[in-house]
Amino acid sequence: MKQYAIIVAGGSGSRMGSSVPKQFLPLAGKPVLVHTLERFLTYSPAVQIILCLPADQLPAWREIRKAHSSLEAFASPILETPGGATRFQSVRNGLALIEGEGLVAVHDGVRPLVPVEVIAAGFRQAETDGTAVVAVPAKDSIRQIVSETENRALDRASLRLVQTPQTFRVGLLKDAFRQSESPLFTDDASVAEAAGFPVFLVDGSYENIKITTPEDLLLAEALLRNS
Amino acid sequence: MKQYAIIVAGGSGSRMGSSVPKQFLPLAGKPVLVHTLERFLTYSPAVQIILCLPADQLPAWREIRKAHSSLEAFASPILETPGGATRFQSVRNGLALIEGEGLVAVHDGVRPLVPVEVIAAGFRQAETDGTAVVAVPAKDSIRQIVSETENRALDRASLRLVQTPQTFRVGLLKDAFRQSESPLFTDDASVAEAAGFPVFLVDGSYENIKITTPEDLLLAEALLRNS
Repeated sequence: MKQYAIIVAGGSGSRMGSSVPKQFLPLAGKPVLVHTLERFLTYSPAVQIILCLPADQLPAWREIRKAHSSLEAFASPILETPGGATRFQSVRNGLALIEGEGLVAVHDGVRPLVPVEVIAAGFRQAETDGTAVVAVPAKDSIRQIVSETENRALDRASLRLVQTPQTFRVGLLKDAFRQSESPLFTDDASVAEAAGFPVFLVDGSYENIKITTPEDLLLAEALLRNS
Repeated sequence: MKQYAIIVAGGSGSRMGSSVPKQFLPLAGKPVLVHTLERFLTYSPAVQIILCLPADQLPAWREIRKAHSSLEAFASPILETPGGATRFQSVRNGLALIEGEGLVAVHDGVRPLVPVEVIAAGFRQAETDGTAVVAVPAKDSIRQIVSETENRALDRASLRLVQTPQTFRVGLLKDAFRQSESPLFTDDASVAEAAGFPVFLVDGSYENIKITTPEDLLLAEALLRNS
């Protein structure tokens, strides 16, 4: 089945204390987003990449693309689409570029350390089950806030922290994205679940961090140095 | 009110791929546990430290203590108690060393980067409310496993990842630890909650990481280098 990857990178640099969007910040000499794309390239140059970026970041992206010739190794050129106001809208814009059936991995542009075997496991399981969402066990105790004065412990053993890629049969995910948007849609798994599709989990990796704060960037550099 | 800190360090090095217990691993030239203790010292040398360590690690700890004269700056010498088979039993052993009233912060020995202001906030709020549990908002989407074939998204906005210190009025925590142990007790807040005490949350810090995997140690070194 044809394989697609929608790479969503809608963030600004605000939580990083930087005016550079975090997907463009340098990590071991290359923008975060280039690392992310290279992980998919290592998995397979045949994957069709669809990059969702805020429209005003497309010129900067094109400069970056020119400067990193490794990205020309994809069998088909990277497609670009302007991101929407929310992640939901960005992914929907990306899905609109896919014609016909196949498998689509939706991945955060700011998860540059995703192991190739995790990408592979997602595609494999989505082919069998229709959905494949990468997750890891929670290391911390987790509490749920019930009201302003009340919160309660959840059973940690039953909880999983969700990462990306989240991989789906194309038709299934398109069906799911025909719903109206809800503030509870924090990822694609929640969209699929709300549409009535069972969500299957795949083992992720603690190295597959999301770069959202300066500490995350430090960790990513340390991990790359030691890999 | 007199202030105590029970520092719990029961871990082995197994998840680190190391035969050295993780609380003794070097971090920027000093054992993790020494960093942790120095954070409390910086907060206040008047805090009475109670260290819960597996009995077979006490000789190694005494060597470390001798080699780090900074630890002599505490107003009262560090008390030691052998840890129990579980975290619950370790904390109970530590509590048994406290006579009279006061406030007690229970802290993971392998959280060496706890900011001094987080320690302070915990003691302050526990004095007012009886409990003060450090927590941060969840960055990831979180799913709850309902059965082997079913899992569901939780509302991320309502979830908090729990850290330490978890600070309590001494009498309250002693009451809570009179319960029988339950496998749901993953931290002291869950013990207090099960005993019927309301749990109050205090803002933690994403820097206040728990050293459990090799990646965590890399991040801690990077954070120390950049602080």
